[in-house]
Amino acid sequence: MKTDIIAGFLCGDERQTACARKLADMGYECAVCGFEKYKGDLGLCTKIKNIADLVEMSDVLVLPLPATTDGITVNAPFSEKTIYLSDIFPEKYYKKLLLYGNSKIIEKYANEYNIKSFDYCEREDLILKNALLTAEGVIGIALSEMKESLYESKCLVVGYGRIGKILSQRLKAFGAKVFASSRKAEKLFDAEMNGIVPVKNENLVSAVKNCSLIVNTVPQVIIDESVLREIDEKTLIIDVASKPGGIDFEKARNRKLNVIWALGLPGKTAPETAGRFEAETIDEIITESAQIFGG
Amino acid sequence: MKTDIIAGFLCGDERQTACARKLADMGYECAVCGFEKYKGDLGLCTKIKNIADLVEMSDVLVLPLPATTDGITVNAPFSEKTIYLSDIFPEKYYKKLLLYGNSKIIEKYANEYNIKSFDYCEREDLILKNALLTAEGVIGIALSEMKESLYESKCLVVGYGRIGKILSQRLKAFGAKVFASSRKAEKLFDAEMNGIVPVKNENLVSAVKNCSLIVNTVPQVIIDESVLREIDEKTLIIDVASKPGGIDFEKARNRKLNVIWALGLPGKTAPETAGRFEAETIDEIITESAQIFGG
Amino acid sequence: MKTDIIAGFLCGDERQTACARKLADMGYECAVCGFEKYKGDLGLCTKIKNIADLVEMSDVLVLPLPATTDGITVNAPFSEKTIYLSDIFPEKYYKKLLLYGNSKIIEKYANEYNIKSFDYCEREDLILKNALLTAEGVIGIALSEMKESLYESKCLVVGYGRIGKILSQRLKAFGAKVFASSRKAEKLFDAEMNGIVPVKNENLVSAVKNCSLIVNTVPQVIIDESVLREIDEKTLIIDVASKPGGIDFEKARNRKLNVIWALGLPGKTAPETAGRFEAETIDEIITESAQIFGG
Amino acid sequence: MKTDIIAGFLCGDERQTACARKLADMGYECAVCGFEKYKGDLGLCTKIKNIADLVEMSDVLVLPLPATTDGITVNAPFSEKTIYLSDIFPEKYYKKLLLYGNSKIIEKYANEYNIKSFDYCEREDLILKNALLTAEGVIGIALSEMKESLYESKCLVVGYGRIGKILSQRLKAFGAKVFASSRKAEKLFDAEMNGIVPVKNENLVSAVKNCSLIVNTVPQVIIDESVLREIDEKTLIIDVASKPGGIDFEKARNRKLNVIWALGLPGKTAPETAGRFEAETIDEIITESAQIFGG
Repeated sequence: MKTDIIAGFLCGDERQTACARKLADMGYECAVCGFEKYKGDLGLCTKIKNIADLVEMSDVLVLPLPATTDGITVNAPFSEKTIYLSDIFPEKYYKKLLLYGNSKIIEKYANEYNIKSFDYCEREDLILKNALLTAEGVIGIALSEMKESLYESKCLVVGYGRIGKILSQRLKAFGAKVFASSRKAEKLFDAEMNGIVPVKNENLVSAVKNCSLIVNTVPQVIIDESVLREIDEKTLIIDVASKPGGIDFEKARNRKLNVIWALGLPGKTAPETAGRFEAETIDEIITESAQIFGG
Repeated sequence: MKTDIIAGFLCGDERQTACARKLADMGYECAVCGFEKYKGDLGLCTKIKNIADLVEMSDVLVLPLPATTDGITVNAPFSEKTIYLSDIFPEKYYKKLLLYGNSKIIEKYANEYNIKSFDYCEREDLILKNALLTAEGVIGIALSEMKESLYESKCLVVGYGRIGKILSQRLKAFGAKVFASSRKAEKLFDAEMNGIVPVKNENLVSAVKNCSLIVNTVPQVIIDESVLREIDEKTLIIDVASKPGGIDFEKARNRKLNVIWALGLPGKTAPETAGRFEAETIDEIITESAQIFGG
Repeated sequence: MKTDIIAGFLCGDERQTACARKLADMGYECAVCGFEKYKGDLGLCTKIKNIADLVEMSDVLVLPLPATTDGITVNAPFSEKTIYLSDIFPEKYYKKLLLYGNSKIIEKYANEYNIKSFDYCEREDLILKNALLTAEGVIGIALSEMKESLYESKCLVVGYGRIGKILSQRLKAFGAKVFASSRKAEKLFDAEMNGIVPVKNENLVSAVKNCSLIVNTVPQVIIDESVLREIDEKTLIIDVASKPGGIDFEKARNRKLNVIWALGLPGKTAPETAGRFEAETIDEIITESAQIFGG
Repeated sequence: MKTDIIAGFLCGDERQTACARKLADMGYECAVCGFEKYKGDLGLCTKIKNIADLVEMSDVLVLPLPATTDGITVNAPFSEKTIYLSDIFPEKYYKKLLLYGNSKIIEKYANEYNIKSFDYCEREDLILKNALLTAEGVIGIALSEMKESLYESKCLVVGYGRIGKILSQRLKAFGAKVFASSRKAEKLFDAEMNGIVPVKNENLVSAVKNCSLIVNTVPQVIIDESVLREIDEKTLIIDVASKPGGIDFEKARNRKLNVIWALGLPGKTAPETAGRFEAETIDEIITESAQIFGG
């Protein structure tokens, strides 16, 4: 049955090619466009030259994560030419389903053109899986950049949501002394019960002292000037929160702190698994939307 | 009392500078020579230009780890000029103590010239600490190189000694499915009790299949042609065993396998901590040898 | 300041005496009534003979957890005589604060008599801490009752809420193969990421097979006849859910299954810690209510 | 082939019946004698009334663990009458193999009568498995006896051998603050790397303070009067070391300390698994001794 459904992938990074390959392995007919510069394996996927052809033939059109970063062009790191959102939104195209990642403007256009669309990044399962991969990615960056071991180092995780929680556990497994901050008392209790030292947000100023690693996961400027002032120059700071991030970058730069803004982590650090997880979620979305495919 | 002892550091990498800095913090008077190209922090250490001066003034002379790789020159990545073992072995120099890492030829010379010497790498505590740092370093390489996550990946650790054991635990903490091989039944039982799948050496041929990561820790060619034949091209292979290593490299290259020979790991991936651990061990050695310093 | 506040404890088990003792250590003046048969240590607490005296003198009156099991008498395992709710609810008494555990009828009476009251069991921190203690208690029962080890045993946790989650981790730390069920996909993902095998509720029938231990945490009859039919006679079943529990006891008895209904767990298995946690929560409630004490 | 071998079990506890049952499941023909009072399941085993008959028919005779506690009678908790070692050592009997647990006197007799014998407790795999089960048993006792939770409690493990190591990990998994002592620096380093606080034996005096739980694993009196003096009356002390144990019991009793001498732990707390592990080891011994059975 899956073989009757054509999934078209328009642009994206290695996560998208892995996703397309995986869906093809699962039985979908997969077509890709906008990957001219990609040298890797495309498995059973068919390359399509022309965007219009891809859009026309696809029962499901999959845009990357994020679908666009500027609201005008599609996020297309492997494409030889620039691809515009306007190339893909003449309404006639969409008989079926448009999937995209983390993009309000796509949602807006889809509604405007009355296209059935879905942000796969809003699926709870994918959010959680991406959190796990992000935590791994952060550890990878930390191990590459730090001259100290994680073992016995003091690490602070700002925010104890999905990413913060998994990351804290991973750091702890290395024998690090892990501190985690949160606004919510409940989360601080949860941290404490898992062997993490809880830090109230108002105590961040003292908690950042002597840290080897600080990771921010909160998309709000929590690490402001008063906090930055107490951070040592040797501390590695990694920010994984989406814009505006949780660090006052201007101020951090002035103090010559070592900050890494690690965006799009799972796509960069573990594209194969990130793509596989995305494929599993897209398969579920399609299955749940079976009726629109005459199922 | 420590301030009466002059520790001279001759050449080495960032681990040695971290070690010297740490010992200086502990109260030793530290002098260094052969680090002209080093740009980092030397803390309280004094730079000495002339080898003979350093050797002459030092109560304890510390050679790097490894002290030499060719048996002729000192291992001196930060030195502007080549330094020969012959520069440091005229017998008159050594009134006190010579410390070095992992080098049989230094031991031989020291005995010949009747110099009191000690291989700090033979200390059980340092061996264990280095094993732990090596395991961290391997995880760092794996996270950088793999396009999959460690989570849910199949990993095989060849050898279940100090490194193998810690590494297996670290990998498991990421949610990997970890297999470990050993010759010894007792070690396989130990692995099993820690949630690691035990693999007898004779079953390596089948265990390597579908691995995302294989790490060798055994300094003997265990991963020979018959085993290599079953390894997938996508598998990342990391060898941390000292020469000759556990992998038939010639054969591995022919099969275009992805092998990384990761030598000197803690020194490269966590020089600060490796240096600190070395300093702690050297401090202990000096304390135990106190009598020769008139203690 | 705390020394100005008199906390009166009316009846309860060892958890309550531990709570009173702990609050006295924290500086409160503590009075207790209804513990005639208690042989243990009451620390700095004062024994009061007469209920009316205790109620009269107390700024804060603390009823046990649960405050009543029949809606008529106070839960008073250490009292020599029966104590009725009617003994404590003439309105004149309450100038201040009434604290109680897990009892809707107390809430009703308090509202009726216009007494400021608070169910300390609704505090998120205490719920979480009690979940942790309950998980410990379950492990204790399992270790006492099972003739097999937890190591390598198959364990199923029904429900992946606060208790289910901590319990699953504890069981896993023993090397058990742990399965957890939940209605919610998100929780099943969470379980899976923590190395627990996720089980959809509709698959419980097959999941219960060959279990050494099944623990129910859901206060709804999920383990019904169709599930019970597949459970082995050697399986230990522990139900920690409050009434009606999650097991059809009638049917379980008919099948001669080994079911333990473990109610009031932290109070029985770790009264000292449960009491300490309760004291910490009560201290917070009093602090937050400072204004009513003229603070 | 196994069906040709008759394994005779003479006396013992539930571990032995579980062992016999398991070997019968594995295909051996199993006969048991001296279990008249045992009410449980004997599976496929045949009951034999007469000791002489059992000994005569058995290719392998299995004595319990320990085989004897007084050197005169067989350890026979389920036997209606006393059975003497002298009943089983007329030399004519033994054509084949005598297996026994942890008993020097059996070894002596066997050598005297020239009987091929083997102490199954000396097998490294069984030692390790029993250590794991012993650790579980200790946790079970601690959870039953302590009025505090293990979570956040201070626990001290005396000795960091097989039992000490596993036990420390198990305690740590409960969120306890775990200290472990050892004579050997190497073991203390190992403990530290696993998140356990290392304690030198000379520092036991201060380490025992404020402990909720102390477990001794060393068969030497380490916890002597000077140490006992510092232990709180509320501390639970569990000794799992075989005689003479590591605690000065006389002195401990004088101080009214709460000491539990937990001998024969896996046999009591997890007889099914202990018996299964024993059966696996006996199967291996028999397989390795195949030649004497004409194999």
